[in-house]
Amino acid sequence: MAKHIGKQSIKFEKKISVTSTASTVGTKEGEGPLGKYFDVILKDAVDGETSWEKAESKIVQDNLNLAVKKAGLSMDDIEYIFSGDLLNQGTGSTYGIRNLNRPFFGLYGACSTFGESMCLASIMIESGGASKVLIGASSHFCAAEKQFRFPLGLGTQRPLTSTWTVTGDGAAVLCKNGNPPYIVGMTTGKIVDFGITDANNMGAAMAAAAADIIMTNLKDFNISPDYYDLIITGDLGYVGKELTIELLKKENIDISNNYTDCGIEIYDKNTQDTHSGGSGCACSAVTFSSYFYNKMKKGELNRILFIPTGALMSSTSVQQGESIPGIAHAVILENFPKGDS
Amino acid sequence: MAKHIGKQSIKFEKKISVTSTASTVGTKEGEGPLGKYFDVILKDAVDGETSWEKAESKIVQDNLNLAVKKAGLSMDDIEYIFSGDLLNQGTGSTYGIRNLNRPFFGLYGACSTFGESMCLASIMIESGGASKVLIGASSHFCAAEKQFRFPLGLGTQRPLTSTWTVTGDGAAVLCKNGNPPYIVGMTTGKIVDFGITDANNMGAAMAAAAADIIMTNLKDFNISPDYYDLIITGDLGYVGKELTIELLKKENIDISNNYTDCGIEIYDKNTQDTHSGGSGCACSAVTFSSYFYNKMKKGELNRILFIPTGALMSSTSVQQGESIPGIAHAVILENFPKGDS
Repeated sequence: MAKHIGKQSIKFEKKISVTSTASTVGTKEGEGPLGKYFDVILKDAVDGETSWEKAESKIVQDNLNLAVKKAGLSMDDIEYIFSGDLLNQGTGSTYGIRNLNRPFFGLYGACSTFGESMCLASIMIESGGASKVLIGASSHFCAAEKQFRFPLGLGTQRPLTSTWTVTGDGAAVLCKNGNPPYIVGMTTGKIVDFGITDANNMGAAMAAAAADIIMTNLKDFNISPDYYDLIITGDLGYVGKELTIELLKKENIDISNNYTDCGIEIYDKNTQDTHSGGSGCACSAVTFSSYFYNKMKKGELNRILFIPTGALMSSTSVQQGESIPGIAHAVILENFPKGDS
Repeated sequence: MAKHIGKQSIKFEKKISVTSTASTVGTKEGEGPLGKYFDVILKDAVDGETSWEKAESKIVQDNLNLAVKKAGLSMDDIEYIFSGDLLNQGTGSTYGIRNLNRPFFGLYGACSTFGESMCLASIMIESGGASKVLIGASSHFCAAEKQFRFPLGLGTQRPLTSTWTVTGDGAAVLCKNGNPPYIVGMTTGKIVDFGITDANNMGAAMAAAAADIIMTNLKDFNISPDYYDLIITGDLGYVGKELTIELLKKENIDISNNYTDCGIEIYDKNTQDTHSGGSGCACSAVTFSSYFYNKMKKGELNRILFIPTGALMSSTSVQQGESIPGIAHAVILENFPKGDS
């Protein structure tokens, strides 16, 4: 039975194994510093399809199939799929999952979706309702820019606070029992609104949610930041990362020594010119599913706090003058989980 | 511990009580046959706000607060909120929940979202991770028409197969233990694509998913349709309902004697001119939260199969020539659940 801990955390009793992961990314991501960790690097933005949106769905389908194959399973073994993306009405997932013929829960947590998938899939396994669950999250730079900001053809100049939406899909198979790493706990995010109205400054919009969930996680489990080998946020980029460190310093919490952000890891700052870093549902999903999962498998990291972060606006809400609320879900992953301590 | 049943169903061990419900609807819904069952009927489509989208969020916020109040709880007692809607990036929910300060899981299942909320909130309670969970789903006629079809000001003629998006929010508080009715089981839907490409014929697009989930539920639990006092789909309307009955007849399953659809119940066929009936996330959410919940409370219905149905397209996917996939999640609600039989 899951144990409710503190204000908004849960500790799992079952061994929830991240049995396999799969990552498929676009060309730009493949050329970045994590290139060698990705399973599949696409040659272009359409991947043989006739639109960016259709390409995203194809990436979803192919990458989910790959995760299942890497787990040594067939799609029929999968009891549930949890997935989401940034496209209106989650069509990246829907059309990608349409042919997989498995029970499906569609999620929307903006770029926190991979964290939300991990949390809910873990809860599903913990409940006894399933023992093999497939999770994923995707985004596509071209489809996202077109939908949220300006047509790509306009060649609009991007401000220095802006981040680059990662093209790709990150996926994982979670199983009851199995090999490490294990998902041992979670802290579910509340919506936190910092009052940011600039859709080109998502890092700032999400930083308050990230800081809030880190603080809550540490309080709920009664631990300090050094409990973790690494604390990893989703897609705050350079601007949001600094802001998160600052916000926590005000609460006398110092994470500056063991903290990074997937949006910083995925692109090279000097040669890839993304301004503030990477973003999108796929940012944390593919970085976890390749680089960090690999580091855990090798024992270079044994205990991490993984925190996909999301900005919950739409182009309509921005046009109507609304501020951009953020959310972040924190997942504790460990190689050697202790008993009940 | 939840018990996995058959192909894609779960039977709950814990008593998951639907402790309270709340329903807020627009003027048209208030004037319909279920008018007297709704908690709040709005005077107009903006509810004091400056846009339809902001109005939807206000309805969400007010109605979730009402459900909690009717459960005799305060918002601080609620451990998790599960909610979703039809607006791009789920902003109906996001901005409605922003001020509630509770851990939040955003869902997207189109008009099946209330069923998805029920399923995942039940799983959360079953896992031991929570004992008080708030669920909801909303939609808004004007915001949905503008987003999915044509600007309302155009006065476009609606074809006879089209349904009318319900304005409103349906919500419920689920608690571990408590009073009947109880959520005793669920059958999670797969995406089913019938090949329909007409966004004005959603009933047909969803009928195959509805028929599939009814068939699966009956098989998984090894029961016949008359096990239920009533089988209730979400928003198939007249066209989709007939198609569902027909599809099941081909499988030698006759549900014609104890089957209805929320989209048929909510508007008067003769006086309200909605063509094929009601639709939208709110359609099943408010009809359950008012009329059917009331009938269960009174003992006029003791065992129902409640099946919110969703059409998973976006305006982009329709414009790109994609067909409209459907999904449906089935929830078993009973007043007198048997032990393990």
